[in-house]
Amino acid sequence: AVSRLLGWWLIDNCPSPERCSPVTREQLFDLSRLPDEFGPVAARIEAGALVVDWSHGEGSSRFDPGWLSAHDYGAGYDGEDRPEPRLWRAADMPEPPTVEGARILEDDQALEDWLSAVAVYGFGRLRDAPRAPGDVERICARIGTIRETNFGRVFDVRARLDADSAAYLPVPLEGHVDLPTREYQPGLQALHCLENTTAGGLATMADGFAIAEALRAADPSAFETLTERPMVFANRAKSTDYRWRAPAIGLDRAGRYVEVRVGPFLRGPQAERPERMAELYRAIRAITRLARDPAFQTQYAYAPGDLVLFDNRRLLHGRTAYDGAQGARWLQGVYLERDELYSRLRMLRRAKRAAMVGG
Amino acid sequence: AVSRLLGWWLIDNCPSPERCSPVTREQLFDLSRLPDEFGPVAARIEAGALVVDWSHGEGSSRFDPGWLSAHDYGAGYDGEDRPEPRLWRAADMPEPPTVEGARILEDDQALEDWLSAVAVYGFGRLRDAPRAPGDVERICARIGTIRETNFGRVFDVRARLDADSAAYLPVPLEGHVDLPTREYQPGLQALHCLENTTAGGLATMADGFAIAEALRAADPSAFETLTERPMVFANRAKSTDYRWRAPAIGLDRAGRYVEVRVGPFLRGPQAERPERMAELYRAIRAITRLARDPAFQTQYAYAPGDLVLFDNRRLLHGRTAYDGAQGARWLQGVYLERDELYSRLRMLRRAKRAAMVGG
Repeated sequence: AVSRLLGWWLIDNCPSPERCSPVTREQLFDLSRLPDEFGPVAARIEAGALVVDWSHGEGSSRFDPGWLSAHDYGAGYDGEDRPEPRLWRAADMPEPPTVEGARILEDDQALEDWLSAVAVYGFGRLRDAPRAPGDVERICARIGTIRETNFGRVFDVRARLDADSAAYLPVPLEGHVDLPTREYQPGLQALHCLENTTAGGLATMADGFAIAEALRAADPSAFETLTERPMVFANRAKSTDYRWRAPAIGLDRAGRYVEVRVGPFLRGPQAERPERMAELYRAIRAITRLARDPAFQTQYAYAPGDLVLFDNRRLLHGRTAYDGAQGARWLQGVYLERDELYSRLRMLRRAKRAAMVGG
Repeated sequence: AVSRLLGWWLIDNCPSPERCSPVTREQLFDLSRLPDEFGPVAARIEAGALVVDWSHGEGSSRFDPGWLSAHDYGAGYDGEDRPEPRLWRAADMPEPPTVEGARILEDDQALEDWLSAVAVYGFGRLRDAPRAPGDVERICARIGTIRETNFGRVFDVRARLDADSAAYLPVPLEGHVDLPTREYQPGLQALHCLENTTAGGLATMADGFAIAEALRAADPSAFETLTERPMVFANRAKSTDYRWRAPAIGLDRAGRYVEVRVGPFLRGPQAERPERMAELYRAIRAITRLARDPAFQTQYAYAPGDLVLFDNRRLLHGRTAYDGAQGARWLQGVYLERDELYSRLRMLRRAKRAAMVGG
């Protein structure tokens, strides 16, 4: 196999201690002081390594061939090393992907299986996880840093009298993402069941990317509107006034799904151009109807010790109504960012590879 | 003045308690169950309010005319209510915008002035702020929720032996944003000086949006590459492996600057297509050279009690070298999200309007 690697790319990745700090593993090398004509003058194999000599007094660099082939950008290396999402409908997913959680605080393989499910399907459930109040934080600290919000660090989801969100009323909740009013709606949400003696209050999860994909097929014009035209999300609470404007369906420059923002109860007054407002509302109605379609809803009951982690920028979560007088329902939740999960997955896999080499 | 407002838009913003919860101020109304033909059947002025009667048994809605004119999307309402950024160079900004900070914990006007400077120029300095260790958290809690990261909740910036970042070595630091390796690099950073007896260690701040704008003028092809082609940022620390791929210059769909990602020491191995790699490196060198240009660098010395808050997704911050043996330099920092600042500014202005009406 032949790898074609640019000189600038090579020297930017030179592992020598003058160019990459052995203490911080950060680059010390300044590309911008070299002229455009800079480049390699000679290259050879030395003791199994690629050695390149540089022009302009830059000496030489030595590269491990395994590292080079793993990072060959002409041959599949994409810089990210993230699992590919797989879209699903209710028929594909009668239950959430489930992992035995009793030993989640010690068991790295259970942690990897759980996080992989979240990366691929957008959610994963631990069963029989430790179930004391606050355990959700202890368990999720295994992934990374908790993201605190105006709801606090660990939030309690149960009916309460001073509700500042429909989540805290025993009403049904349509599928939604949390905090679409924030520039960065939290990437991950964990909901941990401590108590559930209600009938009803079934949780629902729907794959927002699959819903967007269905909209693209059924109504391309609504899909285009919701990917191109920003919507306004707003929440005026007593002490905060968060507003954000972003398309309901977020795509990256390669056209891949990044996020959905579907929050039926947190739309602010829309600010579209007058001639486009009717089409925006038509598109909002179209995705709202799809988001309610039972074909997308996986329903399940929470049992104490269940901990469901889900991608809050992909999955729409909701619940059916329950009667707060007939029983108690108590979930505790935390948010984290999505890249904490990707980082932890890489670390778990790195540790496993190191152990396999060691063994 | 005539406002043309769509029926769907009006009913979506209907303030009646059946359509908007008086408890949570969230929408209860489901647009998607009404047919496309839904709309107003009559409208009139009643006791100074606009009353609209709806088809399909939806009854009527009553709107305050002041609210309607403030949210008239054909006449300037944009859904966001955020100050417009003004780009600057060093000549425009010999010192950071500065606000007297002794009473920042009580004084709402000082808080508003400080946050407005950050929204408009990307940074603002409090002088003579309370200066005990941990005060940075107490003061920034006036804005909103602190964003914890892998560096902790409050991080100390001083030379230390176990450095996991160049920030903790007494070396000069080129202008950079913090954590470009994260999907959501923190929106705001606060640095609070507790001690500074060094010569050197001057802080530098440069407006990344002004640098991007200068690149657009000088080298449109490099500008296009850095807005269109994602770069890889990566940091392999002992316990985390964060990587993210995003353009160095982030624009929204209207072409406005959203963020810059310039981190000379956190580039990962780039993953561009082979035929485009040389142009990517040419563009990286071009923006790196501009980012170092003294014409963009505002330099200042930290005095104890100074607290500089800046937009970490817009400003490039750095420092000149210092000799850790010649004196001590101790800053404490926290991160927050940018929309905490916008929310707080709206709340401060709302309180001021209410007080003016009340008085």
